[in-house]
Amino acid sequence: MRETPSNLTLKPGDTIGILGGGQLGRMIALAAARLGLRCHIYAPEAANPAYDVAAKYTVGRYDDEAALRGFASSVQCVTYEFENVPAKTVEILSSRVPVRPGAKALAVCQDRVLEKQLARDLGATTADFVSINNLEELVQGIATIGTPSILKTRRFGYDGKGQFVIRKAEDAATAWAAVAGSPCILESFVPFLREVSVVAARGLDGIVKAFPVTENEHRDQILRRSIVPATLHPVTARSAIDIATKIATALDYVGVFAVEFFVVGENEAETVYVNEIAPRVHNSGHWTLDGASTSQFEQHVRAISGLPLGATAPTAAKVEMTNLIGDDVLDWHSLMAEPDTQLHLYGKGEPRPGRKMGHVTRFFGR
Amino acid sequence: MRETPSNLTLKPGDTIGILGGGQLGRMIALAAARLGLRCHIYAPEAANPAYDVAAKYTVGRYDDEAALRGFASSVQCVTYEFENVPAKTVEILSSRVPVRPGAKALAVCQDRVLEKQLARDLGATTADFVSINNLEELVQGIATIGTPSILKTRRFGYDGKGQFVIRKAEDAATAWAAVAGSPCILESFVPFLREVSVVAARGLDGIVKAFPVTENEHRDQILRRSIVPATLHPVTARSAIDIATKIATALDYVGVFAVEFFVVGENEAETVYVNEIAPRVHNSGHWTLDGASTSQFEQHVRAISGLPLGATAPTAAKVEMTNLIGDDVLDWHSLMAEPDTQLHLYGKGEPRPGRKMGHVTRFFGR
Repeated sequence: MRETPSNLTLKPGDTIGILGGGQLGRMIALAAARLGLRCHIYAPEAANPAYDVAAKYTVGRYDDEAALRGFASSVQCVTYEFENVPAKTVEILSSRVPVRPGAKALAVCQDRVLEKQLARDLGATTADFVSINNLEELVQGIATIGTPSILKTRRFGYDGKGQFVIRKAEDAATAWAAVAGSPCILESFVPFLREVSVVAARGLDGIVKAFPVTENEHRDQILRRSIVPATLHPVTARSAIDIATKIATALDYVGVFAVEFFVVGENEAETVYVNEIAPRVHNSGHWTLDGASTSQFEQHVRAISGLPLGATAPTAAKVEMTNLIGDDVLDWHSLMAEPDTQLHLYGKGEPRPGRKMGHVTRFFGR
Repeated sequence: MRETPSNLTLKPGDTIGILGGGQLGRMIALAAARLGLRCHIYAPEAANPAYDVAAKYTVGRYDDEAALRGFASSVQCVTYEFENVPAKTVEILSSRVPVRPGAKALAVCQDRVLEKQLARDLGATTADFVSINNLEELVQGIATIGTPSILKTRRFGYDGKGQFVIRKAEDAATAWAAVAGSPCILESFVPFLREVSVVAARGLDGIVKAFPVTENEHRDQILRRSIVPATLHPVTARSAIDIATKIATALDYVGVFAVEFFVVGENEAETVYVNEIAPRVHNSGHWTLDGASTSQFEQHVRAISGLPLGATAPTAAKVEMTNLIGDDVLDWHSLMAEPDTQLHLYGKGEPRPGRKMGHVTRFFGR
């Protein structure tokens, strides 16, 4: 079979291009290195955590066609560490080199309405939602969905940014002013007991392998802690993984992705609601770096390189990953001295409030 | 306490200088990155596996004083991945920045006579040996030590290079011609049952932590396979670790090192003979990358940075590391698909006979 962009596989010595140079790009590059693959980072920032561990980096804007063409010609495959890659960037690169995951997955995951609609179409449960394009639709939406509900921009939201809680119908105008007229989604409030996520990979051959379901705790809308295994009935866990598998298959997805779920109800009534799909390696999968047979970063590298996916079993009875946010990182020295603990620092400069500076993984029963 | 070169500790964001850019330097750099430390590689080769994963590299000769001074001024600490670093290089660097392990350890480990003498002085068992400087001393040495015995150059030997077996007294002239007049050591042949090694670290605070004793199999005088745990009586294992600890303490050593032993006799008669000391991370410790709480590479980074050493417990009942030498690496695709296996490739180009291209770690009972 002739190699085409859609089935091209990488071999040791080849170069992966990564859009974005933050900690996720850095950890992808470190995983690629273990497999003898080189990385070339492309990002607009002059300094970036990933630059320090990559064979090459290019500082360029995501709309700089000439720079993107040069980048594409130096790599065998392109991936990205963030979901807000402009469609046009992917279009420019795709004509020259495989971009994995592809444009279709990116388009759906960049839009909360398309994302939830896909989940619904595949038979998954989600919050009730309506698409909102103006104040009238918002007023109508609140009447349909009720309160409390949440207005979110359809695009470019992360870590709780671009989200507004609507407690009563009268909040409509204030909320609409706050989103400054961006296309939005209005979602019913889901009275969840906990949040969980499925981090999984789909290979070029269509095989999907999921890591065990992870339980996630947020603080100030930023992931604070992930615990494996999640407190979840095995049947519910199986169902969450099934939904993630269906989503990846429907998107013809290649690479690692995460599906975030709300857990509602207990025992027989336990149900998972799809909340978000992230078309990339995910913070709730960082525990796999030390706690699973294959890390999510190596799994992503394997998937986008067209190589066989690795095993996803945890290597300890319980694994707990805690983000070091802002000044948390100042404890690095004592964290390093803790037994059964692995510290990861991202090589960022100053700790600022809300900035993810590193994470620490703790093992129980290893 | 004021920080001096001897007690200086590193913090995240600091830079480690590494002399040598092969796979050991590469794996040290990857481990440093996880802790938020940057690496600057210094080596004479234009291309090198470690360059691809380091924040910076300098191509320079080990006797280029100006280049070495520039290198020293850009890092907070210098280490090395090979034991044949010229003493003069260390002297130039040491006047500007801490070099760990230090000059004393390097001097002893570069010389087979000093190395064995130290082991003897500390009460360890070694082969019988004599220092040989000319043919007359060799003839006399063979008469004293007997045959079979082994003539080795005192310095610059590795992977069996610079070694000649003397089967009968008449081999003296041929052997002496073969070493071309280099200062040598003549060692009695040790009828060993197996070879084992202790990989351990000594911190800046003098604390020594050893990984479990590893059993090593060689092929064509190159390490082929390492297995943990070694087939060894617990008392013998304890004694090997005690010897390694004494050696590190005597050398005022800082960093990871390996002591290779021959195992002679069985049951109550089991004894370990010190064969070699390697003042660096060691091939027989590669299994720790995936099979121990802390890898030897991270442990080395911690030690030379003056940070607390990590735990050394294995994370599986049995771990086996196999080097991929030369064409062995062509199996990379099927190795990657094996369960309970972690593949590591070093990013080298062409597989040549005897060239270490990568390794594979297999886990049993994890």
